[in-house]
Amino acid sequence: MRFKFPLMAIGLEVAIIVLFGLFVQYETDRNSFQQLNITKTTDMERFTELYPLFQDVHVMIFVGFGFLMTFLKKYGFSGVGFNFFIAALGLQWGAIAQGILHSHGQKFHIGIKNMINADFSTATVLISFGAVLGKTSPIQMLIMTIIEIAVFAGNEYLVAEIFKASDIGASMTIHAFGAYFGLAVALILYRPGLRGGHNNEESVYHSDLFAMIGTLFLWLFWPSFNSAIAESGDKRYRAIVNTYFSLAACVITVYASSSLAKHRGKLDMVHIQNATLAGGVAVGTCADMEIHPFGSMIIGGLAGVVSVFGYKFLTPLFATKLRIQDTCGVHNLHGLPGVLGGLASIVAIAMGASDTSTMVIQAAALGSSIGTAVVGGLVTGLILKLPIWGQPLDQNCYDDSVYWEVPRWREHDHHFHEHGDHNQLEPEV
Amino acid sequence: MRFKFPLMAIGLEVAIIVLFGLFVQYETDRNSFQQLNITKTTDMERFTELYPLFQDVHVMIFVGFGFLMTFLKKYGFSGVGFNFFIAALGLQWGAIAQGILHSHGQKFHIGIKNMINADFSTATVLISFGAVLGKTSPIQMLIMTIIEIAVFAGNEYLVAEIFKASDIGASMTIHAFGAYFGLAVALILYRPGLRGGHNNEESVYHSDLFAMIGTLFLWLFWPSFNSAIAESGDKRYRAIVNTYFSLAACVITVYASSSLAKHRGKLDMVHIQNATLAGGVAVGTCADMEIHPFGSMIIGGLAGVVSVFGYKFLTPLFATKLRIQDTCGVHNLHGLPGVLGGLASIVAIAMGASDTSTMVIQAAALGSSIGTAVVGGLVTGLILKLPIWGQPLDQNCYDDSVYWEVPRWREHDHHFHEHGDHNQLEPEV
Amino acid sequence: MRFKFPLMAIGLEVAIIVLFGLFVQYETDRNSFQQLNITKTTDMERFTELYPLFQDVHVMIFVGFGFLMTFLKKYGFSGVGFNFFIAALGLQWGAIAQGILHSHGQKFHIGIKNMINADFSTATVLISFGAVLGKTSPIQMLIMTIIEIAVFAGNEYLVAEIFKASDIGASMTIHAFGAYFGLAVALILYRPGLRGGHNNEESVYHSDLFAMIGTLFLWLFWPSFNSAIAESGDKRYRAIVNTYFSLAACVITVYASSSLAKHRGKLDMVHIQNATLAGGVAVGTCADMEIHPFGSMIIGGLAGVVSVFGYKFLTPLFATKLRIQDTCGVHNLHGLPGVLGGLASIVAIAMGASDTSTMVIQAAALGSSIGTAVVGGLVTGLILKLPIWGQPLDQNCYDDSVYWEVPRWREHDHHFHEHGDHNQLEPEV
Repeated sequence: MRFKFPLMAIGLEVAIIVLFGLFVQYETDRNSFQQLNITKTTDMERFTELYPLFQDVHVMIFVGFGFLMTFLKKYGFSGVGFNFFIAALGLQWGAIAQGILHSHGQKFHIGIKNMINADFSTATVLISFGAVLGKTSPIQMLIMTIIEIAVFAGNEYLVAEIFKASDIGASMTIHAFGAYFGLAVALILYRPGLRGGHNNEESVYHSDLFAMIGTLFLWLFWPSFNSAIAESGDKRYRAIVNTYFSLAACVITVYASSSLAKHRGKLDMVHIQNATLAGGVAVGTCADMEIHPFGSMIIGGLAGVVSVFGYKFLTPLFATKLRIQDTCGVHNLHGLPGVLGGLASIVAIAMGASDTSTMVIQAAALGSSIGTAVVGGLVTGLILKLPIWGQPLDQNCYDDSVYWEVPRWREHDHHFHEHGDHNQLEPEV
Repeated sequence: MRFKFPLMAIGLEVAIIVLFGLFVQYETDRNSFQQLNITKTTDMERFTELYPLFQDVHVMIFVGFGFLMTFLKKYGFSGVGFNFFIAALGLQWGAIAQGILHSHGQKFHIGIKNMINADFSTATVLISFGAVLGKTSPIQMLIMTIIEIAVFAGNEYLVAEIFKASDIGASMTIHAFGAYFGLAVALILYRPGLRGGHNNEESVYHSDLFAMIGTLFLWLFWPSFNSAIAESGDKRYRAIVNTYFSLAACVITVYASSSLAKHRGKLDMVHIQNATLAGGVAVGTCADMEIHPFGSMIIGGLAGVVSVFGYKFLTPLFATKLRIQDTCGVHNLHGLPGVLGGLASIVAIAMGASDTSTMVIQAAALGSSIGTAVVGGLVTGLILKLPIWGQPLDQNCYDDSVYWEVPRWREHDHHFHEHGDHNQLEPEV
Repeated sequence: MRFKFPLMAIGLEVAIIVLFGLFVQYETDRNSFQQLNITKTTDMERFTELYPLFQDVHVMIFVGFGFLMTFLKKYGFSGVGFNFFIAALGLQWGAIAQGILHSHGQKFHIGIKNMINADFSTATVLISFGAVLGKTSPIQMLIMTIIEIAVFAGNEYLVAEIFKASDIGASMTIHAFGAYFGLAVALILYRPGLRGGHNNEESVYHSDLFAMIGTLFLWLFWPSFNSAIAESGDKRYRAIVNTYFSLAACVITVYASSSLAKHRGKLDMVHIQNATLAGGVAVGTCADMEIHPFGSMIIGGLAGVVSVFGYKFLTPLFATKLRIQDTCGVHNLHGLPGVLGGLASIVAIAMGASDTSTMVIQAAALGSSIGTAVVGGLVTGLILKLPIWGQPLDQNCYDDSVYWEVPRWREHDHHFHEHGDHNQLEPEV
C-alpha cells in the first residue's frame, strides 16, 4: 500500500489523460457545420433534455451505490470511499473504452450519451465490488475496474451492435454481468478462514440508516437509469412509467416476503435495503416495450419475492456449498433479477410487446452476458489472487483501519481510554 | 404480524395490479393519432419538461418525509422504512383512485401528471403518519393508507373539479387535510399510558442529523412541489419564485423564534427540522398568484413564527387537554400553516392577486378539506382501534425492535454484553 | 444570544422584505408585451432549461456545504444548522444586492438567473464560514453574511461588468474570494488559547460519514455549478464536460496523494472529503473554454495534488506561523485551487482556448478578487472582534451545546447517568 497503490493510480491517470488527448474531441460547431445546421441544434437540445437524467444516474452511482455499501459497522469509509474511487476511475476508462470500440479506433466526439454510458460502465464494477466487499485491497479494486470495464465494453458491443438485442435498462449487460463477474471473482478469492463468519460482518443501528440513503436514491432515480439511453418519445416515456410502477410493486412484495421469511414476522433491513431495488433491475430489459403498467408490476412484484428468498436461502447456501462468499448478496439484487429481466423480455416479445428484437437474440444476449462475465471474473480472480496486492489478512477483513486513518467511535471513548490514541479500538494491522 | 401483514399486503398488491390491468393505458401514438399530431408532440414535450419536477417531488416523498421521521433514537428503521412502504403502496393506489375518479370510471391514460399526483396523494398519509408515529403497527398504516387516499381523492375531486378552487401547492387539500386527518386518528388512538411521556420519545445526537437530511431535501425541492401541476409559463414561474423566497424568509423567522422561545436563547432542533418548512406549506395555495415576492416572504415569515410557537405551546396543550398525542407535531408543520395558506389565498384574492377563484370558493375548499379530514380520520381511527392489528403495547412504543430485526447500537457493545445477542438492549416484545 | 440574535434576525428580515417590495418585480407578460412576444417565450423556455441546473446548485449550497461541515464530533448541529441560516439569509440579501447593482438602483425583474446568482453569492459566505467554523457565534455569522455578500457583489460587478473577465465557474470571484475573505477574518479572530489544539476539534466515525453526504452532492452537481450561468449551447456543453472529467481525474490524484502523504500509506478522510472537490474549483474559470477534456483532466489532477499537500503542510504552517486557524482548510479546497483556476485561464487564453478575455484582464480579475477579499475580511474581522456578539469561550469552541439544545449522545447513556439530564456530557456554558 505504501507506494504501490499511489504509483499505480497516478500512472493509470496519466495513461488515461494521454488516451483522452489522442481520441476525445468536443461536439462543436465545427463538427456540425460539416453536417446540417439542424443536426447541431438537435445535439444541444438532446443535451438539455438528457442532462437531468444523466444527473439522476450520476447520483445513483456515487450516492446510491456508495451509501448502500456503508451498512457494515466498521467498513463505512471503505464502502463509500472505495466506491468513489472505483466510479471516478471507471467513468474515465469506460468513456475511452466504449468510445474507441464504437468508433472502431477513430477519434470520437464526447457528448451526454457518452457521459451516461461512462457512468453505466462503472455500475458493473460497483456491483462486483459488492460481492467481495471487505475482503479486498484498493489495488485489487483498481485492477478489477480496468479489466471488468474492458470486458463489459466488449460484451456490450456484442449485444448492442452485433446481436442488436434489446436491453434498454441493461438488466443483462450490467446487472447480470456485474453480479456473475463478481461471484466468479469471489469464488477464486474464497477465504476458508471466514467460513464461520466474522465479528465485523454485521451492521450497527446507524450504519443501517446510512445504507438507506443509498437505497432510496437508487430506488428513486431508477426510472432515469432505465430510460436515459432510450429513444426520445414513446419509448422513453414507457421506460419511465414501467420502471416507476415495477419498483412500487416490488416494495410491497419485499415487505411481505421479508416478514414471512423471518422469525416472528419481523422485517429485516438487509431485505429492505436491497430487494426493494430488484424491481428496477428485473424490468430493465423490457422497460421500453409495451408490457403495460400491470405487466411491469407483475415483473417487479415477482422480482421482490425472488430477491428476498435469495437472501434467505441462496446466500448461505452459496457460502457453504459453492464456496462463494457474496458480502452484499449481489446475486439476489442483481444476478437473479437480471436473469429474470432477460427472461421477461423473451416472454414479452413472445406476447408481441416489441418487434425490435427476437426471442433467440434475447436469449443469446443473456447467455453472452453471463458467459463473458463468468470467464472474465474467473480470470480476474486469478490475477487478484497473486499475493502482491496488499490484500487484508482474514482477521482484518471488513475493517476500515487497514486502509484508512480511523477516528474514535464516539465522543465518550475518552472516559475509557487515554486521550490522543484514536485507533486503539481497531485491530492492529 | 406473523401472517396477517404479509398476506394483506400481497392481497392488496394483487388487487391493485388487477385494477391497473382493467383501467390503466399508456399515452401512446395510437391515442394521439385520433387527435391532432400536435397533441402527441405536446404530451411528450410536457413529459420532458415535467420529469425533473416529478423527480424533485419523488425525492421529497421518499427521502424528505422518510428521513424527517428518523429523529427518534430507537425508531429510525420504522421512520424511514414504514414511510417507504406507505409511499410505495400509496402511489399505486392513488394513481388508480384519482384516475378512475377523474375519468368517471372509464379507462384512463397514465402520464407524468398522474405520476406527480400519485406521489402527492401519498403525502397526505405520510403527514398523518407523523401524528401517530411510534404508536401504530404496519397493518394499521396499510389500512390508513387505503382509506385516507380514497377520502383524499374524493375531497380533491370536490375542491378541484366541482368547486374549481385554487390550491396549486395543496396547502388545503394535502397539508391541512393530512394534518387534521392524522390528529383525528391520534385522538381516537389516545394512549393514557403515555400521558407522562416515554423514555424512547426523544432523539440522540446523530438521529437529529439524519432528520436534517429529510428537512433539507423537503425544503430544497418545495418550489417543485408547489409548481409541478401549475400551468406552464407565468404561473409555474411565479409558483417557483414565490415558494423559493417564502421558504428563505421562513428560515430566518424560525431561527429567531426558536431562540426566543427557549431557555437561555438556545436553538431547538425540533423547530429547525420542522418549522422551516412551514413557509412552503403556507404559500402553497397562492403560490401561482401575483402576490409578489415580498408578499410570499411575509406569508413565509409569519408561518415560521406560528409554527415555532405551535411547537412551544400547542403541542403540549393538545397532549394534555385535547388528548391528542401528535408525535411529530404535524399540526404545527402542516395543520396551522395549511390553514394559514387557505386564509392567505382569500386575502390575496381580495387584493386582486388572482381572478381564477373567489373568496367564498376558497373558504369552501378550506372548510371541505378540514371537515372531510376530521370525519375521515375519526372513522379511520375507530377501525384502527380494533384490537386485531398488532398494535404495540405502551412500553414498546417508539421502538423498532417490535417490528424489525435490530442490530447492536454500536461497535462497543461487546465490551459490555455477550457476543451474538444483538437485541439485548431492546425491551422484550 | 438571549435577545440580540433573534431581534437582529427579525429586523434584517423586515428590512429585506421592504427592499423586495421596493425593488423586485416579476418577469411577467406585461413586461414582455412591451418587447417582442418571442422574448417572452424565450424567458420561460430559459426558465425550464435552467431550473434543473438551479436545483442542482441549490442542493450543493444547502446539503453539500451543510453536511460537509458536520465532520466535527460535537459541532454537527451548528455545521448544518448555521449553514442553513447563513444560506437562507444570504440568498435573499444576495438577490437584492446583486439585483440593485446590476440595475443601477432601478427596479428589476427576478428570474431564474437571479435565483442562481443568489445561491452563488451565499457560497462565498459558506466558504468563509469554513475557516472560522466552531469559533464564532450566530450573530457573528449573520453580520459576516451581510458584509461579505455586499463586498462580493461589488467585486463581482467589477470583474464581470467593468473588466468583462471570464470566470464562468467563479474560481476567482467565489472560491478564491470566499477563502481569502475567511482567512483574513480568521487572522483577526486568532485565538492563542487554541494554539495547542482542542479536544473537540476532531471527528468521530459517523460524523465523517455524514460529511461524505456533503462531499458527494457537491462533487456530483459541480458540472451544474460551473455551467449554470454559461451561454446556452456549446459553452454550457463544454463547461459540463470539462468539469465532469476534471473532477474525475482529481479523485484519482487525491487518493494517490493522500496515501503517499500519510503514515503507512493510509487514506485520510479529510483529504477525501475536501480535496476531491478541488478539481471542480480549479477548472471553474476556464470551464467553458476550448481546453479539451484532457486539458481539464490535467487541471483537475494537479488541483487534487496541490490540495492534499496543502492539507498536509500548509494548514499546520498557517496555524503556527501565520496565526490563521483555518478549521476546514478552506485555503486548500477553495483558496489554492481558486488561484490555480485563475492562472489556468491565463494559460488557456495564451494557448488560444478562448478569445473573450485577455491574460491581463484575467490577472486583474484574480488580483481584484483576492485584494477585495483580504481587505473586506480584515475589516469584517475587526467588527466581529468587538466583544458584544456572544462569541464562545475557548473551552466551548467546536461545541454545539453553547447555542443548541443538545440531546444525549446515544441510547446507552442512561446506564451511566441520571435520566432527564440530557446535557450533562457537555461543558457548562
